[in-house]
Amino acid sequence: MRKVGIIGLGHVGATVAYTLFTHGIADELVLIDKNENKAAAEYNDLHDTLARNNYYVRVTMQDWHELKDADIIVTAFGDIAASVKTGDRFGEFELNAKNAKEVGEKIKESGFKGVIVNISNPCDAVSQILQETTGLSKNQVLGTGTFLDTARMQRIVGEKLGQDPRNVEGWVLGEHGSAQFIAWSTVRVNNKIAIQLFSEDEQSKLNKEPNKNSFVVARGKGYTSYAIATCATKLIQAIFADSRLYAPVSVYNPEYKTYIGYPAIIGRDGIEQVIELKLTSKEREQLQVAADKIKEHLKQLKNK
Amino acid sequence: MRKVGIIGLGHVGATVAYTLFTHGIADELVLIDKNENKAAAEYNDLHDTLARNNYYVRVTMQDWHELKDADIIVTAFGDIAASVKTGDRFGEFELNAKNAKEVGEKIKESGFKGVIVNISNPCDAVSQILQETTGLSKNQVLGTGTFLDTARMQRIVGEKLGQDPRNVEGWVLGEHGSAQFIAWSTVRVNNKIAIQLFSEDEQSKLNKEPNKNSFVVARGKGYTSYAIATCATKLIQAIFADSRLYAPVSVYNPEYKTYIGYPAIIGRDGIEQVIELKLTSKEREQLQVAADKIKEHLKQLKNK
Amino acid sequence: MRKVGIIGLGHVGATVAYTLFTHGIADELVLIDKNENKAAAEYNDLHDTLARNNYYVRVTMQDWHELKDADIIVTAFGDIAASVKTGDRFGEFELNAKNAKEVGEKIKESGFKGVIVNISNPCDAVSQILQETTGLSKNQVLGTGTFLDTARMQRIVGEKLGQDPRNVEGWVLGEHGSAQFIAWSTVRVNNKIAIQLFSEDEQSKLNKEPNKNSFVVARGKGYTSYAIATCATKLIQAIFADSRLYAPVSVYNPEYKTYIGYPAIIGRDGIEQVIELKLTSKEREQLQVAADKIKEHLKQLKNK
Amino acid sequence: MRKVGIIGLGHVGATVAYTLFTHGIADELVLIDKNENKAAAEYNDLHDTLARNNYYVRVTMQDWHELKDADIIVTAFGDIAASVKTGDRFGEFELNAKNAKEVGEKIKESGFKGVIVNISNPCDAVSQILQETTGLSKNQVLGTGTFLDTARMQRIVGEKLGQDPRNVEGWVLGEHGSAQFIAWSTVRVNNKIAIQLFSEDEQSKLNKEPNKNSFVVARGKGYTSYAIATCATKLIQAIFADSRLYAPVSVYNPEYKTYIGYPAIIGRDGIEQVIELKLTSKEREQLQVAADKIKEHLKQLKNK
Repeated sequence: MRKVGIIGLGHVGATVAYTLFTHGIADELVLIDKNENKAAAEYNDLHDTLARNNYYVRVTMQDWHELKDADIIVTAFGDIAASVKTGDRFGEFELNAKNAKEVGEKIKESGFKGVIVNISNPCDAVSQILQETTGLSKNQVLGTGTFLDTARMQRIVGEKLGQDPRNVEGWVLGEHGSAQFIAWSTVRVNNKIAIQLFSEDEQSKLNKEPNKNSFVVARGKGYTSYAIATCATKLIQAIFADSRLYAPVSVYNPEYKTYIGYPAIIGRDGIEQVIELKLTSKEREQLQVAADKIKEHLKQLKNK
Repeated sequence: MRKVGIIGLGHVGATVAYTLFTHGIADELVLIDKNENKAAAEYNDLHDTLARNNYYVRVTMQDWHELKDADIIVTAFGDIAASVKTGDRFGEFELNAKNAKEVGEKIKESGFKGVIVNISNPCDAVSQILQETTGLSKNQVLGTGTFLDTARMQRIVGEKLGQDPRNVEGWVLGEHGSAQFIAWSTVRVNNKIAIQLFSEDEQSKLNKEPNKNSFVVARGKGYTSYAIATCATKLIQAIFADSRLYAPVSVYNPEYKTYIGYPAIIGRDGIEQVIELKLTSKEREQLQVAADKIKEHLKQLKNK
Repeated sequence: MRKVGIIGLGHVGATVAYTLFTHGIADELVLIDKNENKAAAEYNDLHDTLARNNYYVRVTMQDWHELKDADIIVTAFGDIAASVKTGDRFGEFELNAKNAKEVGEKIKESGFKGVIVNISNPCDAVSQILQETTGLSKNQVLGTGTFLDTARMQRIVGEKLGQDPRNVEGWVLGEHGSAQFIAWSTVRVNNKIAIQLFSEDEQSKLNKEPNKNSFVVARGKGYTSYAIATCATKLIQAIFADSRLYAPVSVYNPEYKTYIGYPAIIGRDGIEQVIELKLTSKEREQLQVAADKIKEHLKQLKNK
Repeated sequence: MRKVGIIGLGHVGATVAYTLFTHGIADELVLIDKNENKAAAEYNDLHDTLARNNYYVRVTMQDWHELKDADIIVTAFGDIAASVKTGDRFGEFELNAKNAKEVGEKIKESGFKGVIVNISNPCDAVSQILQETTGLSKNQVLGTGTFLDTARMQRIVGEKLGQDPRNVEGWVLGEHGSAQFIAWSTVRVNNKIAIQLFSEDEQSKLNKEPNKNSFVVARGKGYTSYAIATCATKLIQAIFADSRLYAPVSVYNPEYKTYIGYPAIIGRDGIEQVIELKLTSKEREQLQVAADKIKEHLKQLKNK
């Protein structure tokens, strides 16, 4: 049956749990948080939901042993306040590098053999630490990365043109952070090539919107939760159903030697394939900048 | 098409919005909150979700005129901290009585002709104020009331017996607050009468659990959200589909001359019928105590 | 992940497949039918649906080996025309007893270790043959039985009283056939005891309606499909989620020494528990009549 | 609330009804068929489903007056046997032209003001007759057209490349019939241009597959139902939610002066916009051939 562990029950982790629970996507949820009272509260709130839910879901809490036969683990620990304060998700890096190592060790001890979907920020760097610490293969660890920023880009481009976000195709690549960029060569709206719809100036301005928008949300409500939770849910569904979903996620890219936002095929084993894009030279440069930023931070961490 | 206004975007109101949004239950959502930044954050977080959602939902914000042709309004304003602090939902009464009057006036001005589902606490008293202020008929204003406490009772009784909450029938009646009670004469588990399954002592203990549990959740996470949101969602679905759902809600009961948790049939026009129960004399007494508590508070308010 | 085999792709089996497919309830479907062209047609029609479906589902066909690691098998073979012609589901018995033995052998050979949900008619007798032939435990083989007739009773009683079927509780028991009966002592509508709502005469008339209605549908469209498919789907969901659903199904009842429509708790291992009811003496008699009918037919079959 | 009329309750119409019913997409369904017994059977089968459905849906039958305030009408009359026999959907034209006129008149009389989604074949020609007969605007009448063939193309191209159909973009245009064609210039798989993935020979072969596949299904099970029902459902959802879905449907194209499979934006008023594509000269030719075929048949009909 479908079993998902969620580590970190802040607004994001809890919303992922609620989404899986009310849509019948998981048969079992394992909730884990450092804060016992928070975990108990979420556990109880979900149990109080059972009588009104269209689906029955078994929910357990605080038991790392339950992860042994889980299919998927979602990692959603962290402290968004630190990122909001500094205006960059690396504001949480020191804390979450530590978290990632602790959590990674415990996942390893549990005997978990499935796929990790990491949400914790900075997403690319933390995904890499989780992969290294758990000893799982690079295919088995992926991050939500720019899958969320892509949703934001689809919305923003759609709004500019009076179109539904789902009529907008194409990707945001690079870091799930300030070094992300809209890969304009991939963007199309209703079969029209986006670079013919926006001037270079407009492109530059739109480029900054997805990341900026995330901070508007984070500052207004203290966190972001709904868009990220539905992104994680889509990835979880793709893994359960082995649907070979084509999407940009935080994935290890051998060319850039780091986890980075790049399109891949997602299936039962996690990353089934990294899809090589024919990017423009400018886009390749932007990708290099993002890779360098992520790698530099990881290097600094090791030197500490 | 299906249009829902949500007034008050705290954790409860926002979770109702997210639930309607991700399940495709509403075609249009109108989000309203006193805090502009909070409203903008929820508005943006939902819009960022559009590209990953199975349903398209039109979302607008802060526009009371949009309520004119809404089918349903959910009221979810308030300050749970005040309730948690005092240990009783009347801790929020002064604040929410004021809110209810302001909101009620604005709803009236908007020309709204649909059904109000009130969540704001103290639920029974606030539902009554909203009904009086909006001038809508008593059928058109209902509160989630003990529909939530009933879900909690189903869970608690189910856990005691190792049964799914949905195998537990029966109602919690009275106040959505400390004067609520499990109407044991209505409770059955797998066709077995519950009063034969629990001693009077056990019944007394279980009686306090639903309300107590809500405070465990509220203290652990600072609020309750998931169970209440799914309760409100069920009522919304019943109204849209005219399903004549039989459920205990906060409803005006002419016998007790107040809004109070009591079973009713919910359909397109809100309360289609109040279903009279054959309660035991003890239960009738408990209902009277709850009614007196609610009426006393409403009276005090008028005398202020 | 969630894997379901469906054996017999007539209207019922195919509708079960479509329901699981479009609701994302299964991750994998194995379709099997004696008629290669029919199987290929359903396989292709579902594959053509993939691009418009909210869920990805892997579908394979005609491969009994795929059943080895299936969680659930739905058996839906048969020839409803024979039942419609004779006006009794035992009209299909000779054919389906043969089918059940063949199918049961092949299931056994496949190494299947999950739960069988049998729909094939006469449901109770065929369930028993499948249990015996497959060598699976009695818990692992159940039939939809009077779960469907109960849905029909809920609708009929609800219509009489102007109530939603879901406001009607209680069971139809006995044979999924002419020897079924409404166990009136279990029926309640909005907390009111049904025997106080209907005279004995009315009860007698209503008693015949659920089974009669099935033949109205079968004669009008040549088969029945939607109600039965949703009943099977509910049971499948209960098994996947281990929800301990309380429902009347075709289950082996040791007291009556036969498969028969009787309430049980459904969970991951199939039948978790048979729930003993306090029936009236008349109802116990009706149950005995149903059991005798089923056993007599099974005995005749063995003597052939 | 959401109200849908379905005219013609063959396998397609009935499956559309069942899909809307079990997914909670409509609040009300109006079922109409020439065959009273068939209508009654579907009506009863759906009512028997109510007690097991997650949603309540009001269902009425055979009452044209109910269409007055319906939001959407689905037309699904016809006799697929005639199409299968001749190997071309114009095999049903004489019959369905007559049906379309009768049905169109009755829709007009009912006072219906919503959007018609026509499935009846030959889809493009029948859509045009329905538009003319009902007097509804061209925006208000659309056909499923090559939206279904596009789903089939996505599947076929996906299978060739081992990819999920949803990873395949692009359109089948022209007639929903033998004069349809894959507009290869619009097809992309995982951001790769399809004309670079397939030789011209392969393109030619694949070109015939979508239509051919429909006859494999139709011959194997006597009809096609699941893929077409989910296509119609997607269009219905787009109309209810005003989602401005970008999809190829049967739409009046002023350049070609006929209903024809061509991309459009679908929203609350039906066709919101026809999206002009930059097709190759070969594709424009193929579109002309399709348009000429459809127009010729319509002309012959008028001359009869």
